Parts: sequence; structure tokens; C-alpha cells
Amino acid sequence: MPSSISLVDCEQRDAHDPLRHLREQFDLPAGVIYLDGNSLGALPRTAAARVARCVTEEWGQGLIRSWNTAGWFELPQRLGDKIGRLVGASPGSLVATDSTSVNLFKVLSAALHGAAQDAPQRRILLSERSNFPTDLYIAESLCKERGYRLQLVEPEEIEGALTRDVAVLMLTHVNYRTGAMFDMIGVTAAAHQAGARVIWDLAHSAGAVPVDLESANADYAVGCSYKYLNGGPGAPAFVWVHPRHASRFWQPLAGWWGHAAPFAFTPDYLPAPGINRYLCGTQPILSMTVLECGLDSVLAAANCVPGQDAMTALRAKSLALTDLFMDLVEQRCAGFGLGQATPRAPARRGSQVCLSRREGAFAIMQALIARGVIGDFRAGDGHKHPDILRFGLTPLYVGFVDVWNAVEQLRQVLASDEWQRAEFNQKKSVT
Amino acid sequence: MPSSISLVDCEQRDAHDPLRHLREQFDLPAGVIYLDGNSLGALPRTAAARVARCVTEEWGQGLIRSWNTAGWFELPQRLGDKIGRLVGASPGSLVATDSTSVNLFKVLSAALHGAAQDAPQRRILLSERSNFPTDLYIAESLCKERGYRLQLVEPEEIEGALTRDVAVLMLTHVNYRTGAMFDMIGVTAAAHQAGARVIWDLAHSAGAVPVDLESANADYAVGCSYKYLNGGPGAPAFVWVHPRHASRFWQPLAGWWGHAAPFAFTPDYLPAPGINRYLCGTQPILSMTVLECGLDSVLAAANCVPGQDAMTALRAKSLALTDLFMDLVEQRCAGFGLGQATPRAPARRGSQVCLSRREGAFAIMQALIARGVIGDFRAGDGHKHPDILRFGLTPLYVGFVDVWNAVEQLRQVLASDEWQRAEFNQKKSVT
Repeated sequence: MPSSISLVDCEQRDAHDPLRHLREQFDLPAGVIYLDGNSLGALPRTAAARVARCVTEEWGQGLIRSWNTAGWFELPQRLGDKIGRLVGASPGSLVATDSTSVNLFKVLSAALHGAAQDAPQRRILLSERSNFPTDLYIAESLCKERGYRLQLVEPEEIEGALTRDVAVLMLTHVNYRTGAMFDMIGVTAAAHQAGARVIWDLAHSAGAVPVDLESANADYAVGCSYKYLNGGPGAPAFVWVHPRHASRFWQPLAGWWGHAAPFAFTPDYLPAPGINRYLCGTQPILSMTVLECGLDSVLAAANCVPGQDAMTALRAKSLALTDLFMDLVEQRCAGFGLGQATPRAPARRGSQVCLSRREGAFAIMQALIARGVIGDFRAGDGHKHPDILRFGLTPLYVGFVDVWNAVEQLRQVLASDEWQRAEFNQKKSVT
Repeated sequence: MPSSISLVDCEQRDAHDPLRHLREQFDLPAGVIYLDGNSLGALPRTAAARVARCVTEEWGQGLIRSWNTAGWFELPQRLGDKIGRLVGASPGSLVATDSTSVNLFKVLSAALHGAAQDAPQRRILLSERSNFPTDLYIAESLCKERGYRLQLVEPEEIEGALTRDVAVLMLTHVNYRTGAMFDMIGVTAAAHQAGARVIWDLAHSAGAVPVDLESANADYAVGCSYKYLNGGPGAPAFVWVHPRHASRFWQPLAGWWGHAAPFAFTPDYLPAPGINRYLCGTQPILSMTVLECGLDSVLAAANCVPGQDAMTALRAKSLALTDLFMDLVEQRCAGFGLGQATPRAPARRGSQVCLSRREGAFAIMQALIARGVIGDFRAGDGHKHPDILRFGLTPLYVGFVDVWNAVEQLRQVLASDEWQRAEFNQKKSVT
């Protein structure tokens, strides 16, 4: 642990931060330290004017013609290429569309179809027990439909569980509760060695940590654009398929937008070549349009540090912020019963810090939010996994003094009996 | 046919139209007669301010808290109840979510699961050959997955094809190419009599014609909100399940939002009771929010005629407009090779008029659009079905003089050689 960190140290780090000006891209409420960008990213200043133009000019004046003239029809691919630059996907191999859950259904269907064709004896879908629940629900559903067994293990058991019965390994790259991150390259290689296909959920990775899907030789990926990509509430998600698979397998959400000739209105379905067959129905254009503002806010981090791409520069600051947060909690909140749920090794964690506490975590977070420090709470399971105070540290709009102030507020909440007040122990947050 | 209709007649009809003021709800471009509301509805004036508030206040200031404080989490049900008032669905039985194609996948899955349980010997999914193609693609996909046979027939062959092998009958209520409308009550009763379940696609019905799903005793329905419901480009679609089925059967797009306890983050999927299990992933909130402006623009037609609900009043004007359009085409465009593709009987058609022509239909529509009359073109199949000029007549913002002027422009395009110019014969429209 470093020697005692002071507020002045944090001020100096902000003063020398090459990404500091990126915060000006965002409209953030006064008096708030926003540490929940891992749940809903902040508002890019460009979004209000962009959506106003989409509504008033493109929809209102252009009307149906805007499918051509305003480029609505190209949005899934155009936005997909921008996301691709952040996750190591070639142009034309990733599309923005639908929700993460729906996209996971598509790629898991395709992966199981592929496995059924190439290795029909493999009947296991392997995943992590503490994977994001909706991913497990979709997996459970498809296993039920197709007669597969869903096997759930602890992260350290994955390599041992990669037997010759495993058809598909499905993992979330950065765990939503703990911030723990898998070694994508190593795990993908181990799965391929064992003859399994790999699906990565990048919900807490895209825009948060460097990802290189093609270098990792992954098979399929999905992800979310309303967290670290700042796409706005419920912004359309994304789906990527390695080009070696994209034209080969079929996915069952076979709607008009994934047809080889979507405007020919032929009665038979002929899937488009490549990633376009992973499109299905008409997309919500207002939400799609605003998503581009979020993507541009992340891509703006390129070349802030000479020669560094956006994610390299953001990752350096993200690690500095999360290190600082953990150091300050250790120095200033010792003795308050907090545990570190997030691994300390940089290669093993994403852009969030999760603190565990046996009791009161929900109320502590409510008290913090009342003081203007917005993180979130994740319930434990009562035995192995304790309750979690979760703090997402988004380098685009969080600074080092913000971290100092957030930990100071946390210290004050813990040191007082404030969090035990009834008002902080009642309402259940939905986030 | 009535005696010759004059422009003055049309002016008088506008003057006495009890719905005329509803047009003031919309921002429409100057110099345009918009007859493509069946493809993308016009912009409600309230939408710009509503989306600005959603972006700036709810997202920008409220941030993650807005899931609770701005009611984002209740949008699928709240908007669903408003749609329900227009299609005869009880409160709590319909939700706004996802795309029509994705929703069709859900209900068709559930209907086939139900049939497999109750009548496993039934192995046919019956539909209409000229159903909207994306519906047929989804049906083809699920038949392939589940080992069903997709049987496609002509509309007049449906009753005869309802054998004891039919598990599900899937139809679009108003045909997208011709505007022909099925008798929902009669067809549903015939299907039930034959032991089949019925799915209705209301894409060209919701907001266009009166629909009463519960009185018709239908089983499942899906529909689109960016056409006659004016929800904005790609606005989220809707799904309805009759309460007798809703909690009984399971659909495979089992995401977190359809879970019985979506914030408990339990690893096992437990479907919510009722229609909520037809929700899947996080929804695009900006597009959802604006959809409400569109729904309100339709509901505003209630009580414009004393004692009449919105759809009764809109239907009366819609029939008057489509009758007028067809009469004027017969009177003023005779001898130009146009055929009426839309049935004349009111009970047999929706809110659009489709004219067929052996050649030049694409170029004629382009020439009309250049003159400010926006309809659209639908290609035929080269033999049985000719090319179509399609005109959607939306009583909320189209008047009787508009119809006069549109037909007059059509007459001028046909009478001149204008449509044969190269500029109108080149570019393929995507709409």
C-alpha cells in the first residue's frame, strides 16, 4: 500500500490528467459524484441537439423518406463499426441492434446449431454460476428447448470443466457483482483446445477495458451500450460473430432486416451474408441515433495521450482511479467492516470497485446517494456472496478528487449512525 | 358510384368534419400530402418537448434514479394499457416492447408449446401466402426448429384448410399490399371450432380500424406502433396474450424483464405471471417515451363525436376518405390502366387504398412523391400479383381536400409522360 494519500495529491493528479477535458463532453447534475456509469452512462452534451434533429427534421420533415435520406437503414452497421473499434472487431463484423438478452439468444442458438452439426455428442453448455442472471435465463431457456444441460461452475473450475462433452462456453468478461475479469485470450484458447465454442458477454467491458475479440480468436460476443458506452437508457445492444462463423450458421430470430434482400418481400427467408443475418425487426431509430453520441464520447479519448488509442488511454486512467479508490478505502475506512470484493491485480479486474459488507450495505448506499454520491447496491445470497456496494469509475467523467470526495462521504456515512435511519432502510431500489 | 364529386364537395366535407382539428396535433411539412402513415406515422407536436425532457432531465439529471423516479420501469405496461384501449385488450394484458418480429417469435413459440402439450398430433402452422414476409420468415424459422410444417394458402382457402392437423393459424388482420381485412371474429371462431389457436398481427390495424381482441376471443396478437399509432421511427412494438393463456405457457426469450422478481437476481428463471413474461431485455427508453405521444394523438379522437370512442370516430372518417379516394380515381383517372386492389366493401378493408398497374407503378409513385404526394410502392410477383401504388389514409391528419388534390396530382402524372422520365425510373426506394 502506498503511503498516506492526501486531497492535494488527488488535485495534482487531476491537474496532470490528459483525459480531464473529456468530462466537458457530459452534462452531469451539480453536486453529484456519479459512480454508476456501469449501470447507466452519463448524458453526452451532443445528445439533446441530435435527438431534436432526428425528431423534428428527420421524422417530422423527412417522414418515410428518411429511411434513405437520413441513413436510418445503415445505423446498425454504422454504429456497429464504431463499437467494433472499441472491442477489436473488423468493420462489417458487428451490428448494433435489439437488447443484450435477445442478442444472446441469437448467438447461443447459432453456437448450439454449429455444435450440433460439428460435434453432436457434446451436450453441455458451460457457464459461471455467478454470471449475470439474464444470461443464465436465456441459457436455461435454450438448453430446455434443445435438450442441452446447463452446467454452472465457479470461475476457478472452468478449465477443469472443459471436457469433451462441452459444446459451448458462455461467460461474461467482467463480472457485474465483483468486477472480476476473465483472461479472454487464455480462456478462449483453453476452450478451443477442448473443442468448445466461446461466447463473451461484454456488458461491463465495452468502453470499460481494452477488448480485442479478433486477437483473442473468440467465436461470438454480445454487449450493452447504455453502460460505459453512454448510449442512453436502454440503448440498443450489439452482437458480433467471428467472420469464420457469420455466414455459416443460422439463428432463429429470422426477421426481415436479416434477409439477404430485405425489400424484395419474398415469401422465403434467405439469410443475409455475414453479420447482417443477426438483425431481425425494425429498430428504435431515436434511441439508435442518440447511441452514436455516446460512442463518439468514448472514441474522443483517442490521441489524448499521443499515440494511444481510446481504450488504452481510458484503461490507464481507469486503473489509476480504481487503485486510488481501493487505497483510500483501506486507508480511511478501515475498521468499518468493509471487504474488497474486486481483485487487486490489474489484469483481473474491470473498471469498478465492489465493497462487501455483512450488514447495512443497502442503507449505506442509500445514505451515500442522499449525499450525492451515486453508486449502487447488489444483494448477496446470504451465505457465500455478501451484499455489495458497487462503484463504477468511468474515466471519461470521473476525476481523482471525485474519488477522494466519494470515499470521504463513505467514511462519514460509516462513522456516523446516519445509515441506520429508517429512511435509508425502506424502499427497494430497482437499479 | 355517386354522381360526379367536386372540389367544393370536398371542402364542405372538411368543414363539417368533427375530427378536423386533430390535424393540429401534428407537425407536417409544408406542401406535402402525406399518404404513407401506414408505413411511418406523422410527428405529434408534443414529441419534441417530451424527448427533450427525457434526455435532459430524466437521463441527464435523474441518471440511474430515473428507472424509479421517471417511471421508466413501468413504460411497457403503461403504454401497453393505452394500446389496449385501441385493440380491445384489458388493462394488464398487453405490453409495449421489442419489435413485431421478435414479439411474433414469442407468441408463436408459446402457441406451439401450448399445442404440443394439448394436441401433440397437430403438426401444421397455417398462414396466408401473401402474409407480410417477415411474419412468414419467423414462422418458417420456428417450424424448422420444432418440426412443424408451414402451410400457406390463399385467403379464401383458409376455412377449408383448417383440418385437425392444424395447431396454429397465424394471420395479419389487414393485408399490407392490398388493404384487404379479415373478419377477425368469424375466422377466430372457425379456427377454434377446428381446434386451432389463432395469432393476429395487427400491424396495419392498430389505430387504423376498430379491433376487439377479447370479444373476438383471439389467443395471441402482436402489432406495430410506428404506423397508425404515430410512435416514431422503429418505435417498440406490442404483444398481447389472452389472459387464459398468459400464465400458462412459456416463451423462450426469457430475459430479466420477464422474471417474476427481476431485481432479485436469482440464478433460475421464474416467469412473471401474466403478460409480463413476454418482456425480455432492457427497452430503448427514448423511443418508448416518444411512443406515448403517438398513442395520445390517437386517443385524442375519443368524444370528438359525442359518445363515440376514438376508433369508432376514426373508422367513420377513414371509410369516408378511402371511399372518396376510390370514387375519385374511378371518376378522374379512368382509362389510365389502374386497377383497384383494395376490396370496396367496408367490412373487408383497412385504412389504405391500393391501386394496381401492370407497368410504371414505381415511376408513377416517384413522380407523385416529387409533386409532394407521398405514398409508396410495393412490387408484385410478376404474374398473379401486379405492382401496387399504396396510399394510407390516416383520418387524424388527412382531410377530404387532401384526397381531392392527391388524386388530381395522380391524374396529372398519368396524363402527362412525366413519370417516364429517367429520374423517376432509377433509384430503388427502401421503404
